[in-house]
Amino acid sequence: MITVLIIGNGNVAWHLFNAFNTHKSINVSKINSRTLHVIPKADVTIIAVTDNAIEAVSKQVGNTLVVHTSGFSSIKTLKNTTNRGVFYPLQSFTKGKKVDFKNIPICIEAEHKRDEEILFHLAETLSCKIYKIDSKQRKALHVSAVFVNNFTNFLYKTGNDICNRNNIPFNILQPLIEETAKKVAEISPEAAQTGPAIRMDDKTIQNQLFLLNKQEKKIYNLITKSIQNGN
Amino acid sequence: MITVLIIGNGNVAWHLFNAFNTHKSINVSKINSRTLHVIPKADVTIIAVTDNAIEAVSKQVGNTLVVHTSGFSSIKTLKNTTNRGVFYPLQSFTKGKKVDFKNIPICIEAEHKRDEEILFHLAETLSCKIYKIDSKQRKALHVSAVFVNNFTNFLYKTGNDICNRNNIPFNILQPLIEETAKKVAEISPEAAQTGPAIRMDDKTIQNQLFLLNKQEKKIYNLITKSIQNGN
Repeated sequence: MITVLIIGNGNVAWHLFNAFNTHKSINVSKINSRTLHVIPKADVTIIAVTDNAIEAVSKQVGNTLVVHTSGFSSIKTLKNTTNRGVFYPLQSFTKGKKVDFKNIPICIEAEHKRDEEILFHLAETLSCKIYKIDSKQRKALHVSAVFVNNFTNFLYKTGNDICNRNNIPFNILQPLIEETAKKVAEISPEAAQTGPAIRMDDKTIQNQLFLLNKQEKKIYNLITKSIQNGN
Repeated sequence: MITVLIIGNGNVAWHLFNAFNTHKSINVSKINSRTLHVIPKADVTIIAVTDNAIEAVSKQVGNTLVVHTSGFSSIKTLKNTTNRGVFYPLQSFTKGKKVDFKNIPICIEAEHKRDEEILFHLAETLSCKIYKIDSKQRKALHVSAVFVNNFTNFLYKTGNDICNRNNIPFNILQPLIEETAKKVAEISPEAAQTGPAIRMDDKTIQNQLFLLNKQEKKIYNLITKSIQNGN
């Protein structure tokens, strides 16, 4: 039996609590970061709060192993005097929308071998994709995630805006969106690149610009150039 | 029995031929656009060549109903003197990689009601997602597809590049990539937007810029601004 305490009230805290709660071998509890005057003992204490609050919260925790769940923050952001680690589930969570943790990569980091084993064992109860990622790598992974998740979603929004202006249902594009995502599991994004930019099809490029507003044009031009220069 | 002739030798021609070929009710044949001196008769002639070649090829075809498969070109690009139409499967095809046409939207256009019915019937044999889309809408749809497919794939490449520079396996990001794609089937991309840009998290934004090269920084800054300005 592992006892787990989750501190936080956001999406990650909510999803982790629900996921651990289905496991008989894990005794999980959850408290809000505003109620830190009573901190239950636990084998692993997971601080799942915003990056800015990790330091302050961790100072108040005396449990043996304290980890945060941030992609962005270093392990050194934790200021508890006991052992430190990171337990970073790489997914974009939406509160209320159930997720299948089995396919969510969990990136772990610890300063001691024994703690790494504890975190690995804990991660194993949720996911079959566990990676040892240090703080420097995790920061790079986090910015990669901004590109493939946040920025990609913004391109979906642009596609949606163009469809709306032309009375086209956005869901026509859904199969293409999903196929584009699945394709890079099989071939590298570099090899998968298609479209007028990589074909150097200047006629199509010039014609497409007419359909865009000022800001869309800027993005179209910048990404087109990047594709053509291979960077 | 419908007879279909496909003219072309690219990915779309190859995939359409294979898809029609499995149907007993369709008699399909395929010729290369370089062998136009003998053009077999057919109920529907599908010109699946590059945009620049549609006009020249169509001039040489005398069959009753001639369509192209382009997202970009107007129906008027066809210069045959017989009936014209469009049969545009909205997917990014890779030669040799089998696709399931059932989920591929097919956008049709015709100048006569009777032809529209023929194209609808033909599309029905392949797909359960058929849309009537006119030339102006199709052009807009095509530029939307550039954003959600070509440009999105380029963002995957950027994520891949950042991973490579930091010895991180790119496939850690695959579940996030697929979840991001699936999410917009349920909630609008505008509502699905997460990340440091929309949170106005300037500390994270400034820190992430350090990990990027010059061109990546430009894209990061431009899309971040667009997300923050909602355009």
